[in-house]
Amino acid sequence: MTSGTPISSGRVTLPVEKGMEKEVLELASKWGIDAVRDSDGTEMSEEIMKMGFEVYSTLCLIREDNEWAKANRDCLQQIYLMSDCCTAVSDVLEINPIEHYYSEQFELDTFHDPKKWWEVIDRTTGEVVDPEHWSFDREKKVVIIRKAKKWHRYTVSFLAYQIWEPVSMYNHKTNNWQTEHRLPVDPRHPKARAHLLETLDRWLQEHPNTSIVRFTTFFYNFDLIYDNEGKERQVDWFGYLSCVSPYAIEQFEKEYGYRLRPEDFVDMGYYNTPFRNPTKKYLDWMDFNQRFIAELAAECVERVHRAGKKAVMFLGDHWAGTEPYGKYFNRIGLDAVVGAAGDGVTTRMITDIPVKATEVRFYPYFFPDIFCDGGDPVGELLKVWLKSRRALLRKPADRMGYGGYLSLAWRFPDFIERVAQICQEFRDIHTMSRGTKPYSASFKVAVLNTWGKIRSWMTHQIAHSLWNQKCYSYLGVFEALAGLPFEVEFISFNDIKESGIPKETGVIISVGDAGTSWSGGEYWSDVKIQTTIREWVANGGGFIGVGEPTAFEYNGSFFQLADILGVQKETGFTMSHNKPKVVPEKKHFIIDDVKGNIDHGEGIDSIYKYSDNLKVLNIQNNSIALSANNFVKGRAVYLAGLPYNIENARLLMRAIYWAASKESEMFDWYCDNSNTECAVYPEAGRFVVINNTLEPQRTSVIRYGEKIIELDLQPMGYKWLEI
Amino acid sequence: MTSGTPISSGRVTLPVEKGMEKEVLELASKWGIDAVRDSDGTEMSEEIMKMGFEVYSTLCLIREDNEWAKANRDCLQQIYLMSDCCTAVSDVLEINPIEHYYSEQFELDTFHDPKKWWEVIDRTTGEVVDPEHWSFDREKKVVIIRKAKKWHRYTVSFLAYQIWEPVSMYNHKTNNWQTEHRLPVDPRHPKARAHLLETLDRWLQEHPNTSIVRFTTFFYNFDLIYDNEGKERQVDWFGYLSCVSPYAIEQFEKEYGYRLRPEDFVDMGYYNTPFRNPTKKYLDWMDFNQRFIAELAAECVERVHRAGKKAVMFLGDHWAGTEPYGKYFNRIGLDAVVGAAGDGVTTRMITDIPVKATEVRFYPYFFPDIFCDGGDPVGELLKVWLKSRRALLRKPADRMGYGGYLSLAWRFPDFIERVAQICQEFRDIHTMSRGTKPYSASFKVAVLNTWGKIRSWMTHQIAHSLWNQKCYSYLGVFEALAGLPFEVEFISFNDIKESGIPKETGVIISVGDAGTSWSGGEYWSDVKIQTTIREWVANGGGFIGVGEPTAFEYNGSFFQLADILGVQKETGFTMSHNKPKVVPEKKHFIIDDVKGNIDHGEGIDSIYKYSDNLKVLNIQNNSIALSANNFVKGRAVYLAGLPYNIENARLLMRAIYWAASKESEMFDWYCDNSNTECAVYPEAGRFVVINNTLEPQRTSVIRYGEKIIELDLQPMGYKWLEI
Repeated sequence: MTSGTPISSGRVTLPVEKGMEKEVLELASKWGIDAVRDSDGTEMSEEIMKMGFEVYSTLCLIREDNEWAKANRDCLQQIYLMSDCCTAVSDVLEINPIEHYYSEQFELDTFHDPKKWWEVIDRTTGEVVDPEHWSFDREKKVVIIRKAKKWHRYTVSFLAYQIWEPVSMYNHKTNNWQTEHRLPVDPRHPKARAHLLETLDRWLQEHPNTSIVRFTTFFYNFDLIYDNEGKERQVDWFGYLSCVSPYAIEQFEKEYGYRLRPEDFVDMGYYNTPFRNPTKKYLDWMDFNQRFIAELAAECVERVHRAGKKAVMFLGDHWAGTEPYGKYFNRIGLDAVVGAAGDGVTTRMITDIPVKATEVRFYPYFFPDIFCDGGDPVGELLKVWLKSRRALLRKPADRMGYGGYLSLAWRFPDFIERVAQICQEFRDIHTMSRGTKPYSASFKVAVLNTWGKIRSWMTHQIAHSLWNQKCYSYLGVFEALAGLPFEVEFISFNDIKESGIPKETGVIISVGDAGTSWSGGEYWSDVKIQTTIREWVANGGGFIGVGEPTAFEYNGSFFQLADILGVQKETGFTMSHNKPKVVPEKKHFIIDDVKGNIDHGEGIDSIYKYSDNLKVLNIQNNSIALSANNFVKGRAVYLAGLPYNIENARLLMRAIYWAASKESEMFDWYCDNSNTECAVYPEAGRFVVINNTLEPQRTSVIRYGEKIIELDLQPMGYKWLEI
Repeated sequence: MTSGTPISSGRVTLPVEKGMEKEVLELASKWGIDAVRDSDGTEMSEEIMKMGFEVYSTLCLIREDNEWAKANRDCLQQIYLMSDCCTAVSDVLEINPIEHYYSEQFELDTFHDPKKWWEVIDRTTGEVVDPEHWSFDREKKVVIIRKAKKWHRYTVSFLAYQIWEPVSMYNHKTNNWQTEHRLPVDPRHPKARAHLLETLDRWLQEHPNTSIVRFTTFFYNFDLIYDNEGKERQVDWFGYLSCVSPYAIEQFEKEYGYRLRPEDFVDMGYYNTPFRNPTKKYLDWMDFNQRFIAELAAECVERVHRAGKKAVMFLGDHWAGTEPYGKYFNRIGLDAVVGAAGDGVTTRMITDIPVKATEVRFYPYFFPDIFCDGGDPVGELLKVWLKSRRALLRKPADRMGYGGYLSLAWRFPDFIERVAQICQEFRDIHTMSRGTKPYSASFKVAVLNTWGKIRSWMTHQIAHSLWNQKCYSYLGVFEALAGLPFEVEFISFNDIKESGIPKETGVIISVGDAGTSWSGGEYWSDVKIQTTIREWVANGGGFIGVGEPTAFEYNGSFFQLADILGVQKETGFTMSHNKPKVVPEKKHFIIDDVKGNIDHGEGIDSIYKYSDNLKVLNIQNNSIALSANNFVKGRAVYLAGLPYNIENARLLMRAIYWAASKESEMFDWYCDNSNTECAVYPEAGRFVVINNTLEPQRTSVIRYGEKIIELDLQPMGYKWLEI
C-alpha cells in the first residue's frame, strides 16, 4: 500500500487518556506521534505528560470561569433573535418572542428597554410598527400589539442573553452530561475583558507542562441555536450573531456614525446567512467585530508567547470574526491553526490559511457512534483519507492528528494498523516533496462569488463537512478543485469592479443557485461586471458556470451572460419560443474520459441552447447538463451540477483546460487512467502517482504528451518516483 | 361497449370529398351525420351538397382576395419583432434586424420611418439608444449603431410587413403545396375593411348551398413566427402581435392618450406571452383590439345572417382578440363556436364559451401522419374520447365532428366502427341528460391567476393541445377538473381586489411556477390579496396550491401564504435552518384511493414543512410533494405537480372536498372504484357511470354514503341508469 519509503516519525498528534500509557508508547513508534492532547471529558496523566511529547491543552476562555460569569450576568453574551411570524386574527396580537427557542439556552433581555432595543415588524407590509402600538408585558413575557392589522403577519425581533454556551451545550446534550451549564461571557465589556486576560494568565501559570495552548477558539461561537424542544434549530458556521450587545451597537454607532437596527441582525429571519448577498451594514458589522477580535486575540497570543508556549487556534467553535482569510487575521500572531477535515475542501480550508503552520484533525473522531459493534471505522478512515490526500498533495498540512477517545480506537486493531500507514504516507509527502510547491497549470483558476477571498473553500457550507441538499451538487466542484493541479483563488464581484480580473487568471468558475451569494444575484445586473467579464472572455478567457451562473432576471435575460455560456434557462417567459433540438456530441475533449453516465446531482432543469455554435455534451431531463461554447476568442462551459466523484474530478480538470484553451498543456503531466492522479514537485525532482479507488489500478504517466512510465497501484496505493 | 340506448342520428359533422358520395351516405346512417364540411385542399361535390345535410363552408376573409392584397401592400398586416441580442465588440455595431426571421414571411417595413417607428435598446443597461446614434442603411438593410458601448448588448425592435399569411404558410409548408403565397390584409385600414366586407357579400352570393359560414377565424392570427430556415420559431396561441400597425398605434394614441412604444410589443423579447403578468399598457392594447374586432366581426356576422345563413367561428387560427371569454365576445352575435379538442381541457375551453352552440372537432384529424401503415388511429381516437367524454358529461358540446380527409379514414374499418359508437354515445349524453345540468358539489372551485376569466381553460398552453415541459405537470390539474363534479370559475387577482372572493367559492386553486402569471408573481406581495385570502381561508375556505403557489420573494418569505399552505420552499436563504424531519401519513382522506406511487410529474424540489400541524402525505426527492394543512377554520393542500391520469383526478377530487371541509359530501354520489366516475342529472332523473380505462371494471355507486348498485363496465364502457 505504501511505496516503501523508510519509516519515519513526527507530525502526528494523538488524543490521550489516563490509563492508556502503554498504548501511547506503542503508538509513539507505530504512528510516530510527537504530540499529545486532551479531549473534552478526558484527563491526561502526569506520566504521559512526561513522556517527552509536545502537550496540547485546550482552552476556551469565555466559558472558563463559570463562577465569575454567574456573578456578572450583565457580561453574558447576547443575541438578536426573531420570533415566529404570527398572523393577527384579531386587532390584538400577543407574541411570545422566545416561544420556539430553547429556554435553557436563551433568556429574554428585559434589562435593556424592549421599546428601545426590540422591533415589531409587520411582515405583510415590511413596515416597522410604532412602539406606541405595542407593549411588553413583563409578567406574561409577551409582546402585545394593539391595533394590529387583521390578517397581517407580525414578528418581534428581540435581544436575549445566552445562558448556555452553545458548544458545551452541544457536548453536554450529545454525551448526556450532568454537569453545570457553562455561561459565555462577552469580552467586549471592559470588566469581562480584564477578567478573561487574568484567567488566561492564571491558566498559563497552572499549566507548566502544556507546550501548546489550543484556543477553541477565541470569543464568539458561530450561530448555533436550539429550539424549544432542545434540538438544533439553526446553525450557521459563519454567523456573527453572538457578537451582538447593546454595548457593541453603541460602540459601532460611535465608529460608523449610524446605528444598527434589530432588523440588520435578524434580516427578515434569514440572519445574514452567507448564502445571501450581504448588505453594506452587515459588512460593516463584520469588519467592526473582526478588528476587535483580532486585537484581543493578539493580546491573548502575546501572553501565551510570554509564557513560553505556542498558541494554536481551532478552526471552528468560537471562531466567529477570526476570519482566517480576512484582513485582520495575521494581526493575531498565531503559531498554527488546527481544524477538523472530512474531505478535500475542509482540508484546503485549513491548509490554505496564511499562517505559520496548519494541522488537520482527520475524521472519524474516536467516538462511540462509529467505534462500536457494527461500525466501520476503517471504511470511514479511508473515505476521508482518499479525499484529503488529494488536497494535501496540493497544499500539505504541517501536522495531522485525530480526536476523541483512544481507548475506543484501541479496540479496532485494523484501524490502528491502517492509521499507521496513513501517518507514514502523510510524512512522506513532506519528505519526498521537500516542502516544495507542486506543479500547477500555467494559469490560475478564479472562483467568483459575492464573498471572494474571505470565504475561500467555505462556499455552500452550512456547518462542517455535512451533506446538504442544494449544496452537494455544487460542493463537488470544490472537492474536485481541492486536488486538481491548479492554483485556485477566490475572488469577489467587488474585486472585479475595483481591480478587474487578476492577471494570471485563465478560468473563472461561478457555482450556485440563482439569487444566492454563490451565484451572485443582482451583481449580474452590474454593467461593469458584465462588460469586464465579457471583454476578458472575448480576449481568450475561460468561463465555467455551474448550476445557475450569471442568473438574474433582468432586461429580458435570466442568465445575463447567456451569450458567453451559450445556454439560457427557461423560467416561463419564453415558453412561446421553440427551443433548438439538440443532440449531444459523441466526442469532445471535455468528455473524453467519461464512461457511462455523468452524475450531475440534483441538477438544474430547463436549460436550452442559446448560441448557434454551442456544443452540447450531455442532456438530462430534457435539459442541457453539460455544454461547451466559444465566445470570440474565449470559451465557456456549462455544467448543471457536479457532485464529487473521481470521474467528475477528471471531467472538471478537462473542462478547465479546455475553457482556458490549453488542452495540450493537460498532457504535460497526466495519468491516462482517470482513477489515478499525479502530483509533481519539480524542485524536489519527484512526483507521486495515487490511486483514488479501492481497487488496484494500472496507469500510465504522460509527460509532454508521451508515456514515460506504466505502473500498477494497489487499492488506494501511491508511488513516489523520480522525475 | 354502449349501454344499449336506441340508435339515433344528428349532431355530427363530417369532412367530405368529391368522389366519396357513397361512403357519405353510408356514414349518414352509421354515424348519424347531419352536416358536411369542406377541408383545406378538398372539394365538395354538387351531389353531396344536395343530400340534404347542412353544409359548412370555410371562409378566411383576410386572405381571401390575394389579387387585391398584392395591389394594396400598404394594407398588409404588420408585426413588431425584436432582432437578435448582439454584443458590441467594437464601438460600431451593425445589426441585421430580420436576420433570423423567415424572409418569405416578413419584410422590413422601411416605408414608415425607422427613426420614428423602430427602437434600438442597450439591453445591458435597459436604456433606449438615442436615434441620433444609429442609422438604418437602406441598401445593406442593417441598423448601424455608432458609439456603441463595448461589450454591451443591443437589440433593434422593428416593424415588418407580413408577406405570407401564417396559417396558409403552415399548411403550405406542411403539405408541400406549390400554390401562390397568400397575403394577409389588415382590416383596420378603411379601404381594406371596405374591400373585406365587399368580398364577404360576394362570397355569400357565390355560395348558395352553404348553410353555415365557418370563419377561420376573423382577422388576426395568433403569433406564429418562422425563423430564417423556414421553421417555427415562436408560437403563442394567445398573442396579439398581428394586430399592430402605425395606423393602429395612432388610433390607440387618440383613444388612450398615450403612445405605445415598440418595446410595449416586443417586451424585451418575451412578447407579452400569457405566462407573464401583463402590463397596464398591454391590457389596454388587448382591449383596444378586442373592441375593434368584435365590432367588425359583428358586421360580418350580420351580413351572413342577412344572407340567411348561420355564422360559426373557429376557435383557433385568426382568433386573436375575439376572446371567447372576454367582455366583447357576445357583441359578435355568433351562432356557434367550433373548435378542435384533444383532451378534456380543450373540450371545456370550447363548451364553456357563452355562445348559442358549440361544436367539438375531435382529434385525430384524418391526416396521413396517423392514417397510415403502422398508424394507430383507433388508439388515438380512444385516448381523446376517454378524456373528452369526462368533460362533455360536465358541459356537453352541441355537436361533434372530425376533420381531414374522409378517403384516408375510410381505409380503417375498425376506426369507422368505433367512431359510430362514439357518435351514439355523444348523442346519448343529450338524450339521456335531456339538456339538464349535471350534479355539482355544493360549492364552486375558483382557479386563481393573473388572467382570470378571459383565459378560462387556457392556462399553461403554448399552442393547441401540445405537450410542453414545465406545463404538463400543471395542465393535469385542469384536465382532472374538466371532468370532476365541480363548477369551475377562473378568477383574477384583480377580481379579488375589486370584489373579494366570489360567494359560492369553496376552494381556490393556484397552479404554476413562481413568477409566471399562472402563479401570480408580484401580486402575492399585495396586502389586499394576502389578507383577503387569509381571512377567507381562516373562515373555512379551502386553498389548493400546486407547484409554486403564492411564490414571491418578499419580506422574508418565498411562499407568501406559507402559513396557510403549511409548507415553504427553500431557495437558499434559510439553508441554516434545520427543516423538520417528516414522515408521510399512512392514511388520510386525500390519499385513501392511492395505490402505488403518485406521479407528480416534473415536480418541485426543496419544499419543507412550515406549519406544526401540517400532515405530509407524500415525499419525493426529499421534498414534500403532497400535504394537508389546517389554518384556523380553513384548510389547505399543497401539491408539487399533478400530470393527468385517472388516479390523479381522483386525488384532486378528494383534495378539493377535503380542502372545502366537505368530505362527507363526496359520498353523495361516488364510485368506489377510482377508475370509474359517475355523472348525475337530477332533473333528468338519470345518471351515467363511465369506465375511464381500457380494461373492464367493476364498481359500486355510492349514494349518500350507501351502496345503491354494483355494476360491471366493459373497457371504456358506460351505463345510463335511472336515479
